[in-house]
Amino acid sequence: MTTAAIKSFVDVAPTSHFPIQNIPFGVFRRKDGEASIGTAIGDMVVDLGQLEAANLLRLNACNGRPLFDKPSLNSFMAAARPAWREARQILSLLLRADHSTLRDNKKLRDNAIIPMADVQMILPCQIGDYTDFYSSREHATNVGTMFRSKENALMPNWLHLPVGYHGRSSSIVVSGTDLRRPRGQTKADDAPAPAFGPSRNVDFELEMGFFIGPGNELGTSIATSAAREHIFGMVLVNDWSARDIQKWEYVPLGPFLAKNFGTSISPWIVTLDALEPFRCPGPQQDPPPLSYLTPSEDFSFDVALEVLLQSEQMPSPQAICRSNFRHMYWSMAQQLAHHTSNGCNLRPGDLLASGTISGPTPESYGSMLELAWMRTKPIELPGGETRVAINDGDRITMTGVCERDGLRIGFGDVTGKILPSIV
Amino acid sequence: MTTAAIKSFVDVAPTSHFPIQNIPFGVFRRKDGEASIGTAIGDMVVDLGQLEAANLLRLNACNGRPLFDKPSLNSFMAAARPAWREARQILSLLLRADHSTLRDNKKLRDNAIIPMADVQMILPCQIGDYTDFYSSREHATNVGTMFRSKENALMPNWLHLPVGYHGRSSSIVVSGTDLRRPRGQTKADDAPAPAFGPSRNVDFELEMGFFIGPGNELGTSIATSAAREHIFGMVLVNDWSARDIQKWEYVPLGPFLAKNFGTSISPWIVTLDALEPFRCPGPQQDPPPLSYLTPSEDFSFDVALEVLLQSEQMPSPQAICRSNFRHMYWSMAQQLAHHTSNGCNLRPGDLLASGTISGPTPESYGSMLELAWMRTKPIELPGGETRVAINDGDRITMTGVCERDGLRIGFGDVTGKILPSIV
Repeated sequence: MTTAAIKSFVDVAPTSHFPIQNIPFGVFRRKDGEASIGTAIGDMVVDLGQLEAANLLRLNACNGRPLFDKPSLNSFMAAARPAWREARQILSLLLRADHSTLRDNKKLRDNAIIPMADVQMILPCQIGDYTDFYSSREHATNVGTMFRSKENALMPNWLHLPVGYHGRSSSIVVSGTDLRRPRGQTKADDAPAPAFGPSRNVDFELEMGFFIGPGNELGTSIATSAAREHIFGMVLVNDWSARDIQKWEYVPLGPFLAKNFGTSISPWIVTLDALEPFRCPGPQQDPPPLSYLTPSEDFSFDVALEVLLQSEQMPSPQAICRSNFRHMYWSMAQQLAHHTSNGCNLRPGDLLASGTISGPTPESYGSMLELAWMRTKPIELPGGETRVAINDGDRITMTGVCERDGLRIGFGDVTGKILPSIV
Repeated sequence: MTTAAIKSFVDVAPTSHFPIQNIPFGVFRRKDGEASIGTAIGDMVVDLGQLEAANLLRLNACNGRPLFDKPSLNSFMAAARPAWREARQILSLLLRADHSTLRDNKKLRDNAIIPMADVQMILPCQIGDYTDFYSSREHATNVGTMFRSKENALMPNWLHLPVGYHGRSSSIVVSGTDLRRPRGQTKADDAPAPAFGPSRNVDFELEMGFFIGPGNELGTSIATSAAREHIFGMVLVNDWSARDIQKWEYVPLGPFLAKNFGTSISPWIVTLDALEPFRCPGPQQDPPPLSYLTPSEDFSFDVALEVLLQSEQMPSPQAICRSNFRHMYWSMAQQLAHHTSNGCNLRPGDLLASGTISGPTPESYGSMLELAWMRTKPIELPGGETRVAINDGDRITMTGVCERDGLRIGFGDVTGKILPSIV
């Protein structure tokens, strides 16, 4: 039986992102308010605390110590790769159509397997620190071309290191959380002085992010070859941005209030083991990176990404961008090695995001800034509306899915609406 | 009796930073490993968990709920200003020489009042997010003059908003923690390509920081007039920096690995109530700030600051900088209002630092970059050594103290040594 042919006793629609081969991890809240760790299969959520309590999910890798009776994934993340793989193996078996332990235990099934529609997803872990990279060559080139020139599009450091900066962890929200349009200080080029008010140029940025499992001690580094031991899994990220605030504030210390009013993530963390069939080479790197950034293996992933916009007038969302994670110039392994090359310590649950994922074609640009080319090429929407930035009431949804040889592993989506500022 | 004349039954040397009028808050670890919340008086630490357990420190503001039986200050910080003030009042009374409750309870005194020398200070709270500002006009002008020109020293936005960026919370360490020299990617101006190795230009930055008490909900803002309700207290901060790494990496997203290898803070948080006698006007602001940044009252503090360096050869530390917190152009109230002006949420225990505190005179410059003016004016040390950057084995110590009318309120110190890189 091929991997893709293995089925669960839980119904999984062919279009689902969550077949038995995925086994993502997330945290959900039941109607009674209790938070639990779960996995997703089809349209159902499986409560891993319940399986653990029934002694079906005790990990030898952790000497049977409980990991899933908690409201966040941090302990499981810290438990390291042997624990992640063992949990995945156990769950893959427990959920199989031809395995009776859970299938035929009606009471446990009823308690532990709940419709997704009946739960609310919450943040999967406590995120200590959030770092955002800038690792798509196409995105950096597009932005550089707009703000400088085609000849000087990439900064001198860009091809030598994965440029990154610290984001804000307090304002990371889970998919489904609507955000207020940020207010802020901006200055028009022809204005004598800055003014304060609601941003007039709110944008999305299509990104993916990865969560740290075991971290490293302050003063030590992580090699590119050790990346799999430290990366728990990936999510979709919308790095909402206020371009007009960013333009005025960002010199010389980088983006701050233009970004920290909210960052949205998809609720289900897809593990590298689930993504392994979709691992692929990234772009050729020229010049070759310095030795501490030299890759030890292919470490890109073929994830088809889509961004959809739905205005208040539109009956359904419309795709406005189609991109792919494999376009990223710097890999997660290189980002990890670079981040820790100075001895900076990472902790379980830290989030590192890719930066905007733009591809080579105009439809694959991962932000409105690029899609509408600095407000010069409005995006046309069904019904006659156009956009150069996000309007109040617009909903942005990002999805990601891997497909190959009949196997389909997805990320679900990350969605959120921009609400008017509180004035 | 004047405030300064009130004495404790605990001996307090005239040079101590911690008279009964201070009552700072911190967290210490006993020899048996247990972490406790404490205050400092003279050379002693008072275990507030013990006083609470003896029912001497139950706060009406919190309906008597325990706040001090914890290994961090986050709950007390979140409990808001009425709780902070009540705790301060109770402790000020309990520690008085003319008050018998604690003075004459030998058993409790022996358990709860311990020599500082017998405990280890640890981080006072879980720091969710760390923000660093850039709010000294003199520092920004010095750096701008060096890297651009005297005429274009300040960026166009600088006089209109407190420029800030996100730092890294994982690598914030308490005073006494030595740090490894960071390695990193650097590029000499005349080199054809970058290289990787130990930084050759490690620096300190003299800063102060403040901790957030109650935070704000995402999407809401904090007015300058509400600052006292949200600021729990202040510490000294050494924002260690690797100038050569910074120079190559920081365009366009700001400092990253040049900063996140370590940030040191003093262990005792001094409350705004203790600092009230030293509140003073800050510099005149011209142009006047936009209305959301308009101060509601004087909000600077007269804190005399000193930086000392001790090399491995020197028998004692030597002062190399004398500055004052009152030089800061942007106040903490303005930083708080700006940070939340876009709806960014702050959480109890978040740390916001000032940026390098340089004054108008060369001896008041708060970094080696400025003191040695970009390596052109080496700092002379006793014994004939000179410095343009920090050498391996150098210890940097920062102190801060307020003095007025016989009252002396201090911050203790923040100290740390740079150890060689692990190669």
